[in-house]
Amino acid sequence: MGKQTWTILDSHHGVYVDSLTIASGELPGAAAPIRVAKRRLHGGPCDGVDIIEIGNGEMNVTVVPTRGMGIWKAESGPVRLGWTSPTRGPVHPAFVPVFDPSGLGWLDGFDELLVRCGLESNGAPEFREDGSLRYPLHGRIANLPAEHVQISVDVETGEVSVTGRVRETRLFFTKLLLTTKISLLTGRSEFTVTDTVTNLAGVPGEMELLYHINFGSPLLEPQARVVLPIRKMAPRDAVAAAEIDRWDIYGPGIPGKPETVYFFELSSQPSGETLTLLHNAESTHGAGVAFNVHELPCFTLWKNEQPECDGYVTGLEPAVNFPNVRSFEKARGRVVTLEPGQSRSFSVTVRAYRSSSEVETARAEVLELQQGVLPQVSRNPISEWSAGAEG
Amino acid sequence: MGKQTWTILDSHHGVYVDSLTIASGELPGAAAPIRVAKRRLHGGPCDGVDIIEIGNGEMNVTVVPTRGMGIWKAESGPVRLGWTSPTRGPVHPAFVPVFDPSGLGWLDGFDELLVRCGLESNGAPEFREDGSLRYPLHGRIANLPAEHVQISVDVETGEVSVTGRVRETRLFFTKLLLTTKISLLTGRSEFTVTDTVTNLAGVPGEMELLYHINFGSPLLEPQARVVLPIRKMAPRDAVAAAEIDRWDIYGPGIPGKPETVYFFELSSQPSGETLTLLHNAESTHGAGVAFNVHELPCFTLWKNEQPECDGYVTGLEPAVNFPNVRSFEKARGRVVTLEPGQSRSFSVTVRAYRSSSEVETARAEVLELQQGVLPQVSRNPISEWSAGAEG
Amino acid sequence: MGKQTWTILDSHHGVYVDSLTIASGELPGAAAPIRVAKRRLHGGPCDGVDIIEIGNGEMNVTVVPTRGMGIWKAESGPVRLGWTSPTRGPVHPAFVPVFDPSGLGWLDGFDELLVRCGLESNGAPEFREDGSLRYPLHGRIANLPAEHVQISVDVETGEVSVTGRVRETRLFFTKLLLTTKISLLTGRSEFTVTDTVTNLAGVPGEMELLYHINFGSPLLEPQARVVLPIRKMAPRDAVAAAEIDRWDIYGPGIPGKPETVYFFELSSQPSGETLTLLHNAESTHGAGVAFNVHELPCFTLWKNEQPECDGYVTGLEPAVNFPNVRSFEKARGRVVTLEPGQSRSFSVTVRAYRSSSEVETARAEVLELQQGVLPQVSRNPISEWSAGAEG
Repeated sequence: MGKQTWTILDSHHGVYVDSLTIASGELPGAAAPIRVAKRRLHGGPCDGVDIIEIGNGEMNVTVVPTRGMGIWKAESGPVRLGWTSPTRGPVHPAFVPVFDPSGLGWLDGFDELLVRCGLESNGAPEFREDGSLRYPLHGRIANLPAEHVQISVDVETGEVSVTGRVRETRLFFTKLLLTTKISLLTGRSEFTVTDTVTNLAGVPGEMELLYHINFGSPLLEPQARVVLPIRKMAPRDAVAAAEIDRWDIYGPGIPGKPETVYFFELSSQPSGETLTLLHNAESTHGAGVAFNVHELPCFTLWKNEQPECDGYVTGLEPAVNFPNVRSFEKARGRVVTLEPGQSRSFSVTVRAYRSSSEVETARAEVLELQQGVLPQVSRNPISEWSAGAEG
Repeated sequence: MGKQTWTILDSHHGVYVDSLTIASGELPGAAAPIRVAKRRLHGGPCDGVDIIEIGNGEMNVTVVPTRGMGIWKAESGPVRLGWTSPTRGPVHPAFVPVFDPSGLGWLDGFDELLVRCGLESNGAPEFREDGSLRYPLHGRIANLPAEHVQISVDVETGEVSVTGRVRETRLFFTKLLLTTKISLLTGRSEFTVTDTVTNLAGVPGEMELLYHINFGSPLLEPQARVVLPIRKMAPRDAVAAAEIDRWDIYGPGIPGKPETVYFFELSSQPSGETLTLLHNAESTHGAGVAFNVHELPCFTLWKNEQPECDGYVTGLEPAVNFPNVRSFEKARGRVVTLEPGQSRSFSVTVRAYRSSSEVETARAEVLELQQGVLPQVSRNPISEWSAGAEG
Repeated sequence: MGKQTWTILDSHHGVYVDSLTIASGELPGAAAPIRVAKRRLHGGPCDGVDIIEIGNGEMNVTVVPTRGMGIWKAESGPVRLGWTSPTRGPVHPAFVPVFDPSGLGWLDGFDELLVRCGLESNGAPEFREDGSLRYPLHGRIANLPAEHVQISVDVETGEVSVTGRVRETRLFFTKLLLTTKISLLTGRSEFTVTDTVTNLAGVPGEMELLYHINFGSPLLEPQARVVLPIRKMAPRDAVAAAEIDRWDIYGPGIPGKPETVYFFELSSQPSGETLTLLHNAESTHGAGVAFNVHELPCFTLWKNEQPECDGYVTGLEPAVNFPNVRSFEKARGRVVTLEPGQSRSFSVTVRAYRSSSEVETARAEVLELQQGVLPQVSRNPISEWSAGAEG
């Protein structure tokens, strides 16, 4: 009986824990220095936001149930994962005007390390012919609060995890349930997010899902690099095309520099497992994003080389689709259909590399995945992937 | 001095009671097993929602001040009134995007037994010529919090009631005040909602009001029936017209089945009192909705014969208007004008029938109202009632 | 060390004080009867709103951190500053649909004595060519919560002040920070708001700012008057033009009377300091709004001579721009550009005049400012100032 579970929230049964702290001393037999803390934030834009911090001595992660079980920040020894957004959160959804007619209100809450974009839609906002908003930028899931949350610690295996359920439902329309488990394993400087999306409806449903995983300073810095195992690659637009020769390297923040976005199909192990890497200029620190291309076939690299004050950040974004307007993705077959009751699962692991040798090992892993695969690089946007591409 | 009153909320004077429980033991002389409880919900989509439960041994009702004094659920012995929505609430208005440009955001909070639609407008969303939203689906009142709430118990009469005030006002625009009393009378398995809508403005104001009273399983089931005293009837649209021969009976939920809606003018006693009935397949349980057709001349029957997971539900909806777009209702004279300071009152009683004999008595009551009145049934939508009807 | 400071809110460091009361007795050496109280409101439309009351025996002010550090009410002896809005607040931003496609949702929270309109935009809502909302009425700042709040008392000087920071930022768009200090000085029946707006971005940013300072009964009454030192004046539109001969006097509230708005360039001392005055019919009570025309060159007078129930109110509104649609102001050069990191400061003092002699002294001050300046009065709207003016 090594596993203990605390129910933090169960909306349907009136369960809510305002505050909880569990130290290793209270977990006899725990091998690692486990840390669990749940708090409710008060005042300002964060008022009413619940956060859960879990740690195992190697990795600390802050989960935000109130923001769709997103992950605000993480740190592993000297490596801080996350970024500094012009928005200072975690912002309560009441202050995020997702349905601002511009479709861009989502940005007001955007400051997480890992934020899910979906579930009905993600990507650029889409408008009806009359100009009214149809799908807001990146969808609703990040601004919907979890209805059920638990924390578990298994003192034998040392696994610490948070599970949560978030419902994105509307009578007559989408009825999707996200069930997530965010877990830390003993001795590992990584966390794994395992999501299941279930169509609760009696009719087929559709979904999009993109993991917007964002890294800023100090990991991101001039001469930092991203290393990807590439099968196929194209810039999203002309702006990205113009810089394609430096797609994998970062420069200093330049005021007003437009974002550059690249789309990829990655190579992988036969099982589908793949790894992407971001490391700093000296290759002493890095972050890895591992996932399975059978689950998440589309990969987007977002580079926002603007000054720190404007959000110096890059996104490594495994997804079921590219973040174009939904109708474009639908026409290309990248919107997932779920039969009634059907579920689809997705798993993403984010790793911290805390030394040159760890970075080198990761780089070798990526290069190994590239072995025997000749990257098919388009220097221009391709119509299969980019809504704006000609041809 | 048999009446005791507790002020739960008085926004203007800083009064707020977080939690309150009154048991019969604390009410010396109370004839019935009175129950009063006020709670604040925490966490998830319900975070910050106040609910009040009142009961008199025959009927328990849950009132939601935070959602415009709507009624979430009720139960009377074996009869559960309410339904299971794909949305799990009661949802805090901060999570309901009423002004989503689609006009359909109201659905995100829709899971009540009784929800008022209004006050400025209700019915289908209406758009300006340029496609921008003018009136959102079913209006704002259900997502506006009460500013004043009291609970009263009269130990002599046994009446238990909740009163509340909700303000739907905007400088230069609508200025309406809803005052409601929701009451239970000793020995009765029913509750009565008595509403007064007052035009606070110095100029004439307009209002619409519809009581969306919703029943799901287990009361609603295949072969359940609705029984109405009909003066005039028409289907809302072609979909409903196609099923008009089974308008009063329910089938199993069918995935993707579109809603069917019927409009009625009901017959009544000379005083205007009328009764509508829904009962289960075996006629052992039922629910009645009683009101006065002089106050609420329009009656809408909403059938959503979809599977439980999609919201298996029917709505019995007395109203001052039909739930078409507001401009259509206005043109047909069904939008109410209130002079400056003028009030209009409305009363609706919801009854639980807990046995075959109670159901039979109710059915007899409805049939009595039908006596001598030949129902005027249109098999097709009529232009007087349906926005989309031809002719 | 006469100054004591209490941090009420520091979002980034998890500091939040739910409730605080400091009486003079707790401030040894305080010359004046200082009063400081911080509360959180609960229930109804105010649920979750933080308010801070400060007083020095001459003036009491209620600051609302949750509503962008606006000022709800003030009073000085017999003089009550503020008004009675059809909306009863202070309303939590979660209940204010700023992005209602009509652009008018801001009105749902409008009941303050002093509310800032801005920072990206203010004035009438502006729409894109397709009819979708581009800039909502009066902008966002009044519905954004402060992220940092402090209260200070200097027992030596007797100064009592509240400082706050509010962030209006969106990745890729506006990144403005408002820093405000609201202070009371010993022995004075006035408060001063000193604001600094900083462009946090690495690129130039733009701002508008208008102080919507609103007075109602009993100060405002039939035969009340406004006294301004005028350099140039024009009505906003034909409605105001039709009443230009009584622009400075107030009548009784008339149901349905449209608002009348006048635009001004005011005369001032060489330093730019100027004063505007509103006094009651008997000239026994008054309110002054003092500011610097170099900081706030545009002055708008808003008269809403409607009955009390509809909001009997007038606004004295110093600003960097006139409250037209933003594009009009931009074309006229009245939208302020801030270079990266640049700040602009603004100061407004609101005074209560509590006797005939105080009112007379203020009137003399205004007339002194008028000395030698011939008012240039246009009886019709002018195209330089009014979006709708012809010619």
